[in-house]
Amino acid sequence: MFIYADNAATTKMSRAAVEAMTPYLCECYGNPSSLYALGQRAKDAVEAAREKIARLIGAEAREITFTSGGSEADNQAILSAAAVGAKAGKRHIVSDAIEHHAVLHTLKKLEREGFEVTLLPVTPAGIVEPSAVEGAIREDTCLVTVMAANNEIGTIQPIEEIGEICRRRGVPFHTDAVQAVGHIPLDVRTIGCDLLSASAHKFHGPKGVGFLYARRGAKLVSLIEGGAQERNKRAGTENVAGIVAMAAALEEAVGAIPENAARLVPLRDRLIAGLARIPHAALNGDPARRLPSNVNFCFEGIEGESLLLLLDDRGIAASSGSACTSGSLDPSHVLLAIGRPHGVAHGSLRLSLGEDVTEEQVDYMIGAVGEVVAHLRGFSPVWRDLVAEKTQFVL
Amino acid sequence: MFIYADNAATTKMSRAAVEAMTPYLCECYGNPSSLYALGQRAKDAVEAAREKIARLIGAEAREITFTSGGSEADNQAILSAAAVGAKAGKRHIVSDAIEHHAVLHTLKKLEREGFEVTLLPVTPAGIVEPSAVEGAIREDTCLVTVMAANNEIGTIQPIEEIGEICRRRGVPFHTDAVQAVGHIPLDVRTIGCDLLSASAHKFHGPKGVGFLYARRGAKLVSLIEGGAQERNKRAGTENVAGIVAMAAALEEAVGAIPENAARLVPLRDRLIAGLARIPHAALNGDPARRLPSNVNFCFEGIEGESLLLLLDDRGIAASSGSACTSGSLDPSHVLLAIGRPHGVAHGSLRLSLGEDVTEEQVDYMIGAVGEVVAHLRGFSPVWRDLVAEKTQFVL
Repeated sequence: MFIYADNAATTKMSRAAVEAMTPYLCECYGNPSSLYALGQRAKDAVEAAREKIARLIGAEAREITFTSGGSEADNQAILSAAAVGAKAGKRHIVSDAIEHHAVLHTLKKLEREGFEVTLLPVTPAGIVEPSAVEGAIREDTCLVTVMAANNEIGTIQPIEEIGEICRRRGVPFHTDAVQAVGHIPLDVRTIGCDLLSASAHKFHGPKGVGFLYARRGAKLVSLIEGGAQERNKRAGTENVAGIVAMAAALEEAVGAIPENAARLVPLRDRLIAGLARIPHAALNGDPARRLPSNVNFCFEGIEGESLLLLLDDRGIAASSGSACTSGSLDPSHVLLAIGRPHGVAHGSLRLSLGEDVTEEQVDYMIGAVGEVVAHLRGFSPVWRDLVAEKTQFVL
Repeated sequence: MFIYADNAATTKMSRAAVEAMTPYLCECYGNPSSLYALGQRAKDAVEAAREKIARLIGAEAREITFTSGGSEADNQAILSAAAVGAKAGKRHIVSDAIEHHAVLHTLKKLEREGFEVTLLPVTPAGIVEPSAVEGAIREDTCLVTVMAANNEIGTIQPIEEIGEICRRRGVPFHTDAVQAVGHIPLDVRTIGCDLLSASAHKFHGPKGVGFLYARRGAKLVSLIEGGAQERNKRAGTENVAGIVAMAAALEEAVGAIPENAARLVPLRDRLIAGLARIPHAALNGDPARRLPSNVNFCFEGIEGESLLLLLDDRGIAASSGSACTSGSLDPSHVLLAIGRPHGVAHGSLRLSLGEDVTEEQVDYMIGAVGEVVAHLRGFSPVWRDLVAEKTQFVL
């Protein structure tokens, strides 16, 4: 059995996306900036993709800028709002402790340039409280940036309420929706956001392409200078095949949201219930306000990396948190922010389900994780101390 | 007949590149940052591509950073050298008037931040004279950036001599090699450059991916903050399929350089000789020091856009200059810099040949361009004035 349970890290390209992409590799390979027919066909394809994507998130085509992915979109959104803010003498940004590093590291960069950043704490379920956002907004706040759904623990944030507060207070609102777009219903007008980031490879599109929604009137600064592509907001020859594939993938993903949610939520909850029966295990994130695909647990007395390697041996591709930081020895900043102690945060497991996951696979994962956790605890000095009551169980 | 003669704008993906890419879309789709086998296979593929590309340009694998394309690589190279320079109190950059906008606009941005930029003039053949570079270097020069070959007029710059001067004077040297990599022999050690930019879609790789060579020890600043990918120099999930395809395309392109040059140069020169017989036509760029694929002419008394559209009707996909600025009404900054007057610069035509171009196609192009130029001159008031001797021919 092979179960790919790391769809939050990246997804397999859908057949629709591959089929949409193929003609733009070797047939319609023109440069969209060229005048002749071959170039104009490429340009038409890019613009059709822009319109499709815009429609799928409730935006206008001109509000979509194509990027090389979610990280670039996050960087551009935040640096743009900061640049506008700085011109007006506003150098304060509100965000939260569990954002993706593409947001947090960009905020760090701005702090080095003299911006002040308020990182709000989250509830034990990983929720950013709208009242906390409201309380943090100041006269000099130039941006609120809160993700739509967390990449590690799957918590869905109350972005519509936060958007409403931002609108009322006249503060631009960015949401990193990389984990949410194509997975839960999203409409930029309903959210009331000014800026929204997305990445194709999280919804069965290709790696290396994403988009940034910027509400009409929201000024963007270009991270990449050069040609006049993307209305002067992003230089470089357009990744035509990638853009077309992203639009096809998003269309399919958005269309399948109701069906997938109906199928996935019971399977996700079956997996959660099964893993919760493992002694000294605890679900991370909100049980209800969570992505249909996301399961994240801490298991006391074990080390996440060994868990992943043994699960890989049993045919389960899983993660301990964000793929972007998997080289790091530090425990997840998200798990620390929801109150897990260092030692416990190290023993985390994220299973992010594919839309085609089956009940049989879920039961297999429950069994395999149970076995592996028990096996690892047999070797764990921390676990032996816990059992010997030299220390105290946390979970 | 259809002749794609705009290979400087973009190229058709090679079969080798498509075949290399395909397994990484739907089979080996893991995230290279993941621990399990599917992710590690993707990581291995990225690292094998890095080693292959490094070897093909005479570099070490660790000196290659993957980017979303040539523009991003140019931006990152220049901003990195500027950041290092600024720390040492050096805020002067030497470049030239015919660089790509990805370089020139980045330099403009740095000027707004207080840097001083010396843009050297070029000879009428479009050559940056090494002695001029030497003369422009100052105590506070933190970067020399001169392209390897010009994208419009195909002139190959004396980058080895410029590199030698920079090494001797201790000034970092960047070369935008987007038009040169895979087309002419290049070796970073021979050039003696510290930084070199390249783009896959210019050598039959996919759009949306490129690389930046940075000599070991040359510090890079990250344009995109976030995850720890690319040794913290470029955040965002790697475009695995694009990177693998780029390496395959480059391997094929570099291997074919001798054969292509032997085939293309005589065909290029046949095309040049044929077009030179059109009255009041002049070759742009150096007749000898030029890319094997590049032909660029000015025709007096006509307007480039109409020329392109009529050539498109005759099955010839061509360009008037850079695809990146084709939406612009301004004449090419390159043609102005080599001394073409505004009116004449508007009547330019770039034919950039594919490796598979035939003698028959070359002769067809000579005939078609001759006809179209004559046809357009029949309607042109400027041409009528020239013929009536109300004004003077320039060419």
